[in-house]
Amino acid sequence: MKSILEHINSPIDLKTLSIKDLEQLAVELREFIIDIVSVKEGHLGASLGVVELTIALHYVFNTPIDKLIWDVGHQAYGHKILTSRKDVFETNRQFGGISGFPKMQESEYDAFGTGHSSTSISALLGMALAAQLQGKFQRQHIAVIGDASIASGMAFEGLNHAGVTNANMLVVLNDNAMGIDPSVGALKKYLTNVKTGTAKEENIFECLNFHYSGPIDGHDLPALVNELERLKKIEGPKLLHVITTKGKGLQKAEENQVTYHAPGKFDKQTGELQKKGNTIEAPKFQDVFGKTLVELALNNKKIVGITPAMPTGSSLKYMMETIPERAFDVGIAEQHAVTMAAGMVTDGLIVFCNIYSTFLQRAYDQVIHDVAIQNLPVIFCLDRAGLVGEDGPTHHGVFDISYLRCIPNLIICSPLNEIELRNIMYTAQLGLDHPIAIRYPRGRGQEVNWQLPMKKLNIGEGQLLKEGSEIAILSTGPIGNMVTEILNELDNNPAIAHYNFPFIKPIDAALLEEILQKFNHIITLEDGSAIGGFGSGLLEFANNIGIHKIIKIFGIPDSFITHGATQELYKKAGIDKMSVKQYVQQFL
Amino acid sequence: MKSILEHINSPIDLKTLSIKDLEQLAVELREFIIDIVSVKEGHLGASLGVVELTIALHYVFNTPIDKLIWDVGHQAYGHKILTSRKDVFETNRQFGGISGFPKMQESEYDAFGTGHSSTSISALLGMALAAQLQGKFQRQHIAVIGDASIASGMAFEGLNHAGVTNANMLVVLNDNAMGIDPSVGALKKYLTNVKTGTAKEENIFECLNFHYSGPIDGHDLPALVNELERLKKIEGPKLLHVITTKGKGLQKAEENQVTYHAPGKFDKQTGELQKKGNTIEAPKFQDVFGKTLVELALNNKKIVGITPAMPTGSSLKYMMETIPERAFDVGIAEQHAVTMAAGMVTDGLIVFCNIYSTFLQRAYDQVIHDVAIQNLPVIFCLDRAGLVGEDGPTHHGVFDISYLRCIPNLIICSPLNEIELRNIMYTAQLGLDHPIAIRYPRGRGQEVNWQLPMKKLNIGEGQLLKEGSEIAILSTGPIGNMVTEILNELDNNPAIAHYNFPFIKPIDAALLEEILQKFNHIITLEDGSAIGGFGSGLLEFANNIGIHKIIKIFGIPDSFITHGATQELYKKAGIDKMSVKQYVQQFL
Repeated sequence: MKSILEHINSPIDLKTLSIKDLEQLAVELREFIIDIVSVKEGHLGASLGVVELTIALHYVFNTPIDKLIWDVGHQAYGHKILTSRKDVFETNRQFGGISGFPKMQESEYDAFGTGHSSTSISALLGMALAAQLQGKFQRQHIAVIGDASIASGMAFEGLNHAGVTNANMLVVLNDNAMGIDPSVGALKKYLTNVKTGTAKEENIFECLNFHYSGPIDGHDLPALVNELERLKKIEGPKLLHVITTKGKGLQKAEENQVTYHAPGKFDKQTGELQKKGNTIEAPKFQDVFGKTLVELALNNKKIVGITPAMPTGSSLKYMMETIPERAFDVGIAEQHAVTMAAGMVTDGLIVFCNIYSTFLQRAYDQVIHDVAIQNLPVIFCLDRAGLVGEDGPTHHGVFDISYLRCIPNLIICSPLNEIELRNIMYTAQLGLDHPIAIRYPRGRGQEVNWQLPMKKLNIGEGQLLKEGSEIAILSTGPIGNMVTEILNELDNNPAIAHYNFPFIKPIDAALLEEILQKFNHIITLEDGSAIGGFGSGLLEFANNIGIHKIIKIFGIPDSFITHGATQELYKKAGIDKMSVKQYVQQFL
Repeated sequence: MKSILEHINSPIDLKTLSIKDLEQLAVELREFIIDIVSVKEGHLGASLGVVELTIALHYVFNTPIDKLIWDVGHQAYGHKILTSRKDVFETNRQFGGISGFPKMQESEYDAFGTGHSSTSISALLGMALAAQLQGKFQRQHIAVIGDASIASGMAFEGLNHAGVTNANMLVVLNDNAMGIDPSVGALKKYLTNVKTGTAKEENIFECLNFHYSGPIDGHDLPALVNELERLKKIEGPKLLHVITTKGKGLQKAEENQVTYHAPGKFDKQTGELQKKGNTIEAPKFQDVFGKTLVELALNNKKIVGITPAMPTGSSLKYMMETIPERAFDVGIAEQHAVTMAAGMVTDGLIVFCNIYSTFLQRAYDQVIHDVAIQNLPVIFCLDRAGLVGEDGPTHHGVFDISYLRCIPNLIICSPLNEIELRNIMYTAQLGLDHPIAIRYPRGRGQEVNWQLPMKKLNIGEGQLLKEGSEIAILSTGPIGNMVTEILNELDNNPAIAHYNFPFIKPIDAALLEEILQKFNHIITLEDGSAIGGFGSGLLEFANNIGIHKIIKIFGIPDSFITHGATQELYKKAGIDKMSVKQYVQQFL
């Protein structure tokens, strides 16, 4: 069946093919992606959309000598398959397998690792300028970036600099009007005008001194090859505007682009999603956030929700459907999201700003400079805090406690479960004296009956969950439920106490002091970096009050944790149930 | 003399003035600014450039009900003087005095605090949307932003979102072709084309769905008033392009715009800068960086320097003058600067990326995602680390140790003095296995003879500076020189040992263990946040090896430190010489 693809082991094997063969290869490559992703899961729609572009780029350019960067990298599956990773592609995103994103360590064809959006233009310009300085005048430099990603501030910074250089670089704008969710913003609207021919004379990229070309059909292989060959000979910064369809080639994926961004398992013929069992599951934390926010916002007209381009992932979509005038998708613009939230709060609104923990790194300065210095009570909801699993090191939300704990005025909360998440959301919207960051993980919690009446929490208060005489385990966040499991397995041994600290800052000083005085064995547990984290804060506290005991800190060690199933990563990081249990058992 | 200004206590007093009076007021306001800044120091050029604009805005709009945000805020002196702070303006930037930047706490006329660039559009949009939601349909919203600041990614994010709303907001683009240094980038070039009429039909801001107006002469008060009155009546997002001259009204300031951005004391008639004494001073750390980089780069063709818009402030200007092809000013684009550096390093260049500590917060994600995860040995030089003095809380570089220490793969170094800074720069360019962040403070060091031959440092190695028997003081960075002073004042008491830890990460484990075992009184000292900082790292280390002693941590406490002379701020933060000395003395 896959008569051409089976002979492609690297891009060199493409060079001798006819355009007709390349078109057949596109069919086979698409099938290959669908075959494997339908069973092994992963990001589907983006890669299906750039099959022809991927082939054309590797056909026209001389990778890996020519540098090719895939922005974000969701769309790089075809690239991986054509660049010597066809045989291992079935290990995609699995522990020990290949990464779901381009990764320099993995292949010389991955010129730059990606994962977060909008880095490609800057990295590419760095390479193109390095080529100039080092006399590599023949080398070509190409970045493929989507229309959602090019609208992010960082991409603009790269374009703005590139436009005053004569760097030999080509930005391929892969315009499918989608990020994970539909693209938003004025630039998107403008690009639509360009496509429909209603934009006026001068092109926005030409304003920035780029040689603009397009728009062309990104599924037309001969057109792509011709245009890329032509652009290869033009000096300086160039932008090729390519129109593609996300999910191209699988009807259901084309029709439901949001769902098929990463659809889970599906039928490769029909595209039908695999049915989930009928067992009643605990909700995703995301849905707890999204539905609770609607509940609160219906009762309080001052409540507003903000997401930078993650309405579906964060479940802000529920509020966008119910109360659209108060729910804002600002696009891939975390910096803007945070400062806009601050601006709204100055005028008395109650703002829930939902950002993935790893993406809040993009708005770190805004959290300090616009929110915390001015002590504006923005309510940050940090989704996907902790180890996120298959997306790997670029997406783990493991630094937030450390990078937020040093910021004055900021409350940091990591609720134990769905109910505590609801309660802290309820408490926050009643009005706080400070901004707050509420961190919770990706995926499902444990409370099937979570929609209970909400109650007000006392900021900074921890709780004794189980009494004990010898050993105290102090946990923050849902990882505390692992402690409960351990205790169950140890027949609720009366020696072991368990305390939940939903508040990392301010910390419950009275409770901590009591614990430090009472117990000789103290253990902390957190789903975040051990350096500067919750346990580290306990050390600071103990030192300040002059109590010195051995405190065993279970947290993410000082290395980047790979991708894979979360449970495997917990083991890798040494914060899995067995590790904690074994440590505890030595004292029993 | 100042017959009109003396009667202006708030913008209400402007409303009854004629245009002729307003023009006279402009003369007086300019004089008033020059009178005070010539003696008290501060930012000059930016405020002189917007005198007419400031008057026109307060004349046309109804502040503080209408919201007016000054991006960055260097240019807000006239605004402060017209809004009830004339009498306290002479306390500008002093400890206990008014802030050099807009500050909400200080005045209801300061709608949003600024300091870092490019936040105004996002904050303004937040306010404008809040007005819509709350039925405040008459309220006007205005941001004044310079051409250097509008080219930063965050500003683009704000524009991109605003363009698809019908928010009632006016962005005044104050185009003087300058930031602190001359503006750079493709947008700047484009704006020049707009001014000279060579830009083609469609305007870039119109592409983003803004109602564009201008360019108009920003020193023509009647024109400004007319245009602002007209724009006030137009709905939705608007941008007024105003051309001004930085330093307007003081000839020398117009001619030397970089110098007169913040000129220090000067003669208010002639503009002549106050002569410095002839005493031989120790160099600024900035010049040590800048001149050492040139020295190194002349010997190694692979060395490149990058600054985001601070060639003068960072002293990268020396390399830009000497080796322009390898020194890059990328504009206010910290995110881009970091990822471009990473891209260059993948191609074998040795990249010194100089960013102020407080501005690296803008590129935190890029440091993690593009540099550290890929373990690319970018050499970050973090200027203005620690308390910076009169610029205040928005500019203190006090969080870097805490937010960097949790990042795997990253070396963090805080040299003791100029010589150690040179040596670590020398060591880094020899080739490291990891990226490194070298932090050093604003201003002068202490070594008059600093241009010594450079030598290689052992990464991670600390040093005993003075032996002692009872008390160990562990310092990192130039604050260690304060310890030397204390020791001198205490006749080099044999009880007190002093250790210098230039490397915060990796830490010198062997030396630390020796210290922890030997001494009962241990003191750490750092010019950075105590939470998660150098001392906190020592607690983690001691806990890991099971040694428990009282460790007194001198670091910045958990609050934002105000503005003022650095020595006053050290006192405020409790890390001044007297505080440390008194603590030590109790054990003698």
